[in-house]
Amino acid sequence: MALVVQKYGGSSLESADRIKRVAERIVATKKAGNDVVVVCSAMGDTTDELLDLAQQVNPVPPEREMDMLLTAGERISNALVAMAISAHGLEAWSFTGSQAGVVTTSVHGNARIIDVAPSRVTEALKQGYIALVAGFQGVSQDTKDITTLGRGGSDTTAVALAAALNADVCEICSDVDGVYTADPRIVPDARKLDTVPYEEMLELAASGSKILHLRSVEYARRYGVPIRVRSSYSDKPGTTVTGSIEEIPVEQALITGVAHDRSEAKITVTGVPDHAGAAARIFRTIADAEIDIDMVLQNVSNTAGRTDITFTLSKANGPKAVAELEKLKEELTFNSVLYDDQVGKVSLVGAGMRSHPGVTATFCEALAKVGVNIEIINTSEIRISVLIRDAQLDEAVRAIHDAFELGGDEEAVVYAGSGR
Amino acid sequence: MALVVQKYGGSSLESADRIKRVAERIVATKKAGNDVVVVCSAMGDTTDELLDLAQQVNPVPPEREMDMLLTAGERISNALVAMAISAHGLEAWSFTGSQAGVVTTSVHGNARIIDVAPSRVTEALKQGYIALVAGFQGVSQDTKDITTLGRGGSDTTAVALAAALNADVCEICSDVDGVYTADPRIVPDARKLDTVPYEEMLELAASGSKILHLRSVEYARRYGVPIRVRSSYSDKPGTTVTGSIEEIPVEQALITGVAHDRSEAKITVTGVPDHAGAAARIFRTIADAEIDIDMVLQNVSNTAGRTDITFTLSKANGPKAVAELEKLKEELTFNSVLYDDQVGKVSLVGAGMRSHPGVTATFCEALAKVGVNIEIINTSEIRISVLIRDAQLDEAVRAIHDAFELGGDEEAVVYAGSGR
Repeated sequence: MALVVQKYGGSSLESADRIKRVAERIVATKKAGNDVVVVCSAMGDTTDELLDLAQQVNPVPPEREMDMLLTAGERISNALVAMAISAHGLEAWSFTGSQAGVVTTSVHGNARIIDVAPSRVTEALKQGYIALVAGFQGVSQDTKDITTLGRGGSDTTAVALAAALNADVCEICSDVDGVYTADPRIVPDARKLDTVPYEEMLELAASGSKILHLRSVEYARRYGVPIRVRSSYSDKPGTTVTGSIEEIPVEQALITGVAHDRSEAKITVTGVPDHAGAAARIFRTIADAEIDIDMVLQNVSNTAGRTDITFTLSKANGPKAVAELEKLKEELTFNSVLYDDQVGKVSLVGAGMRSHPGVTATFCEALAKVGVNIEIINTSEIRISVLIRDAQLDEAVRAIHDAFELGGDEEAVVYAGSGR
Repeated sequence: MALVVQKYGGSSLESADRIKRVAERIVATKKAGNDVVVVCSAMGDTTDELLDLAQQVNPVPPEREMDMLLTAGERISNALVAMAISAHGLEAWSFTGSQAGVVTTSVHGNARIIDVAPSRVTEALKQGYIALVAGFQGVSQDTKDITTLGRGGSDTTAVALAAALNADVCEICSDVDGVYTADPRIVPDARKLDTVPYEEMLELAASGSKILHLRSVEYARRYGVPIRVRSSYSDKPGTTVTGSIEEIPVEQALITGVAHDRSEAKITVTGVPDHAGAAARIFRTIADAEIDIDMVLQNVSNTAGRTDITFTLSKANGPKAVAELEKLKEELTFNSVLYDDQVGKVSLVGAGMRSHPGVTATFCEALAKVGVNIEIINTSEIRISVLIRDAQLDEAVRAIHDAFELGGDEEAVVYAGSGR
C-alpha cells in the first residue's frame, strides 16, 4: 500500500461537474489500496473574482487581509471535493493549511514554508479517511496569522506535505498530461517524456516551462520526493520527475527538450563609461529594487571608452527598473536607457550537452537556417538559452526541436496553466 | 472612550459599494474616539451560492465539510471590510472565529458557544487597530474543527464578543433601523421604539419578529449587554434593548408592540381517548422527533369520552410530525391527524398588561370588529398570542395596533431580514 499525495489545479475544479470527476479519481486511487492526501487549488476563477472585489474596495489592499481573503478560495474547493468524495460513501476530512500544520514565514503574499507538522492529516489517514489540505496557504510562525505562499503555492504545499508524510509520490494533476519535449501548441509532434531528472526540470521551469513551478521542483529535489505530472482526466502515467542527471550513464545522456519564455523584456544602458564599478552600480540599483535579472551582456568598449550593458528581466518589472536607472543617469553619465519588450527566449535543456560537443553549433545553425538572429546567448552546464525577437519565437522552437530530432508521434493534449 | 461592537448583516455587505459605506460607518465610529470591534455576516448571496454548489456535488453533504465551506463566506466579507477601512488610512485586522477565541460545542451546523477568549482581539485594540471578527463561526473545543452557530449566528457572535470584552454596547446594524410597534410593511404608522426591555424583546422574537434572533437576546440578557438595533446607512439612534421590565414603574408600563408569524402550521389529532397519558404520549412522540411545539389546545371531552388535541409547530417540521403521529394511530385509537398550514399568529407584547386589566378583552374585541375568528389563544405574563387564518393576518395586526393606539407619525423604513 502506497501513500499518494495528489494536487489538483484550479481549472480541474472550475465547476461542480469537474469537482465530481476529480472526486472519482481520488476515490479510485483510494480503492486501489492507497492512503490518499489531496491538495486542491481554488476553483477556476475564484481567485480572480476575489482579487477584483479587493481592487474595488481598496486599490492597494493590505497584504495581511489579502491573504485572509484569498485563502477562502482553497477552503471552498477542498470542502466541496470532500463532499463529492463522501457521495461515494468514503470518509473525507478537509483541513486548512493551518490545521494541516503548514507553518510559514510572516511575508504575506509570498511566505516560505518553515515546517510542516501534519499530525491531524496523519491521524485522519490512520482512521482510514481521505485527507484534503487547502493548498497555497499556511500560518505564520511568529504572528499566527494566515499567510499565502505566492506563485506555485499549491504545488509547493503538495510537495511539502509529501516530504513531511514521507509519501511514495506527489502527483500534480491538471489539464497538462505530462512534460513534453516542447509546448505541443507550438510543436505538434512534441513527445511526452516518461522521466525527467530534477536538474533538467529545474532548468525547464527556469526557462519558461509552465508545467511545474521552480519552487516546488527545488523542494522536491531537496527532499527526494518523486513528482508525477499527469492529467486530471486520463489514467495515462504522465511524466515522473525524479533522480539526478548524475545517475544517467553519459552514453545515454540526451537532449531533453525545448522551452520558451515570452515573459521577459530587455533593457540596454548605452554609453556607460568603462570604469570599474559602473556595471556594479547599475546591477546594485536593480537588486535594491528587488528585481531579478536573467541574462546579461556587456559589449567590448568602443574607442571612446564607453560600453553598452544589456540585461533581461520580467516584463512586470520593466517600468520600475527603467525608472530606477534613469535616476543614475547624471551620476554615471551614460547616454540612455533603452527598453524593449518585443523579445522572446528559447532554451534547449539536456544533460547530454555536457558530453556531446557541437550542441551549441547545431543550436545556432538551426536558428540561422530559419533566419533568426541571436541577441543574447546564455548557457549553463545543461542548458543553452538565446534571446530573439518574440515574433520569431514559435518558428525558433520548431527549428530547434527538429534539429535535435526530439519529435515523436504520440498525440499531445493542449497545455493549460496548472493552477497555482 | 467607549468600546463598541458593531455587527453588519449580509444585505449591508452585498456589494463592493455597500462594503465601502459600511467601512465609512466603522471609521466614523473609531474617529469619534471609540474602540471598535466589528462582526460581519457573509456578503449578500454568498451563503446561498455555496449551499447551491454543495447540493450539486452531494445532496446530503457531511456537516463538518458544510461548516468548512460556509465559514469561507464570513472570512471573505471581513477581509474586504478590513481592506475598505484601510483605504481610509486606519489599521484594521480581521480574525476568524477560531482566531478570535470563539470556542463552541462540536455540533456542526448548530454549535453552541462554550467560551469566548478574545485575547488577539484585545491585543489588536490595545495597538489602536479596529478588530474584525468573522461571525457565525467558531472552533470546537474537543475536535478543534471549524463549526457554525446556526440561525442568528452572527448576532450571537457579536453579543458574545461584547460580553467577553465587556463592551459598552453591541450595535446590530442592518436594513432595519430599529424595533417598531409593528411591521411597517403592514402598519404604515408603526412607531419606532427608543428602548425595549430584554423580556419584551424575547417575547417579540419568540412571536415572529425577525429583527433580533431569540438566541442573541437571551445571551445579551444573561450578560447584561445592551443591544442597539440601528440602520447600516443612517445615523439615527435606533432602538436600544436593555433593562428589565421590573425596572419600569408599573404606572408607566405600556403595551410595546404587535408581532406576527407566518411560519407556523397547526396539527389537530381528533378523537383521542380521554384517559391519562394519551396527551403525554402524543407530545413525547413529537419531542422525541426533536420538534418544538408552540401553542397547545385541548378541548373538553365529548360525550363519547374522546377529545381533540391541537398544537402549532414550525411549517418546516409539519410533514415529519404528521408521519410520526400516524404511527401512533393504532396504539392510541384516535380518529385522524389533521394538518393545516393556512394559519398565522398575531401577538401583543407589553409589560403593561400585568397591571392593566381588560387588555385581553380589548384585544379580542379588536379582532371581532374586523371579523377575525380566534382558533387558539395563548398568553404569558406580558404577551397575548392568537392563532387565526393567515389570510386575515395583516388585517388583524392593523386592528390590534389601532386598538391600543400604538401608532406614531415617524416615517418608517421597510424591513428586510437582518442577515444571519
